[in-house]
Amino acid sequence: MKTPIHIIKIGGAILDDPARLPNFLAAFSALAGDRILVHGGGRMATDLAGKLGLPQQLIDGRRLTDAATLQVVTMVYAGWINKTVTAALNALGSPALGLSGADGFLLRTRRRTGTAIDYGFAGDVESVNLSLLQTLLRAQVVPVVSPITSDASGQLLNTNADTVAAALADALAAHREAHLVYCFEKSGVLLDAADDATRIARLDGERYAALRRSGAVSEGMIPKLDAAFRSLEQGCASVSIGPADDLPGILQQQNGTRIVR
Amino acid sequence: MKTPIHIIKIGGAILDDPARLPNFLAAFSALAGDRILVHGGGRMATDLAGKLGLPQQLIDGRRLTDAATLQVVTMVYAGWINKTVTAALNALGSPALGLSGADGFLLRTRRRTGTAIDYGFAGDVESVNLSLLQTLLRAQVVPVVSPITSDASGQLLNTNADTVAAALADALAAHREAHLVYCFEKSGVLLDAADDATRIARLDGERYAALRRSGAVSEGMIPKLDAAFRSLEQGCASVSIGPADDLPGILQQQNGTRIVR
Repeated sequence: MKTPIHIIKIGGAILDDPARLPNFLAAFSALAGDRILVHGGGRMATDLAGKLGLPQQLIDGRRLTDAATLQVVTMVYAGWINKTVTAALNALGSPALGLSGADGFLLRTRRRTGTAIDYGFAGDVESVNLSLLQTLLRAQVVPVVSPITSDASGQLLNTNADTVAAALADALAAHREAHLVYCFEKSGVLLDAADDATRIARLDGERYAALRRSGAVSEGMIPKLDAAFRSLEQGCASVSIGPADDLPGILQQQNGTRIVR
Repeated sequence: MKTPIHIIKIGGAILDDPARLPNFLAAFSALAGDRILVHGGGRMATDLAGKLGLPQQLIDGRRLTDAATLQVVTMVYAGWINKTVTAALNALGSPALGLSGADGFLLRTRRRTGTAIDYGFAGDVESVNLSLLQTLLRAQVVPVVSPITSDASGQLLNTNADTVAAALADALAAHREAHLVYCFEKSGVLLDAADDATRIARLDGERYAALRRSGAVSEGMIPKLDAAFRSLEQGCASVSIGPADDLPGILQQQNGTRIVR
């Protein structure tokens, strides 16, 4: 029998909010069994870039990463956010260890090329170091993963945090009952993006296709939902999208959206 | 029989120099057996603080770390420097994993208080998580350690990198043949700080005491040398101080200063 593991991704909105982050971290820390936290960036990278006079450009939520911006996101994601979150989890009694994808080639990536838009130092996942992950989990370590990765030549690359969470969950799914949870600021997938009460509790592929056709799903949600369905196909035991403020509710299927076949 | 391990600390001068760092990393990577790299900061933290309009104050080489400066050093040390060095070592074939002292409480510290100078968010080492270190080493991982640590409450603290290297070496010395090497920009302990040819090849406690009395040892070297003699007393198999450009020479005792009883 496969033993369960939770791979939980938190986005910028919760990282930026000093009133909400401790509540999320306490809920994450209280989870039983193995767990991995993947974090995105938040506004801090944009703020720091602004203070340094580096104009930032985002296309479909993806940051165009020139050399100076790569330095900023590495400092903010792999440095400040990763270490403050890790230290907070350790203080809560979870033996957390902060990592980037570059550490031990946890995620080996290649620079994205050949796209219409040049995303700069942006990485696409090639492989996951499952053996390293398993060594850490066997030692009761809680990995806290920032989405900075590297390619075979040692070039750091900025990588989408949703993609990082999915890659880790998909790689684990062969051996573990992998539960992938995307936490964000809304209550789940909404019929009306402005109204949290229009949450869809269970979303299957057929309904998703219909919602896409009708334009009911917001542009920003499409890559996340496409990835969620792909992870189900890759063998993840469950994939959910829900509010960072109610992690227990998502896991008990009382909140958020459960992606189903 | 205890198996050997090298704990090697590199300072700012080599980290700041894109022409010299690759040579050092290649030599480090070529070392046989277990090894740990501890890195300091370099000018980048001071430069970034300058760009952000944060005045920096150093007393005896120790940075006064207010809240904004803590953010800067965490971003630079645990973020940019740690990840670029780690990615470079991985590309060289050393399975490096970047850590700060805050990760898994590798180094639990307490905030320095009760001193005449208020160093701000500065940490003094309380304990080393030897079990975590041994787990990583058994998995053939090469730890790359930045000197950002945390206290029991999760407060990040800036910690002296020489002290971090010594704490790791001292903790390992009970089980391993621990060789501690401080790499810096000079050829070793010098009789005349301006003349690399005046290197002392072997320095024992008696001669060190005499050099201190005569004022021949520069102020900046005293904490490093005091720590080096303490690590010998703590059971380290060897302690050396020498040029980052010639790591093999230091280890073969053809360069640098070997600290002896």
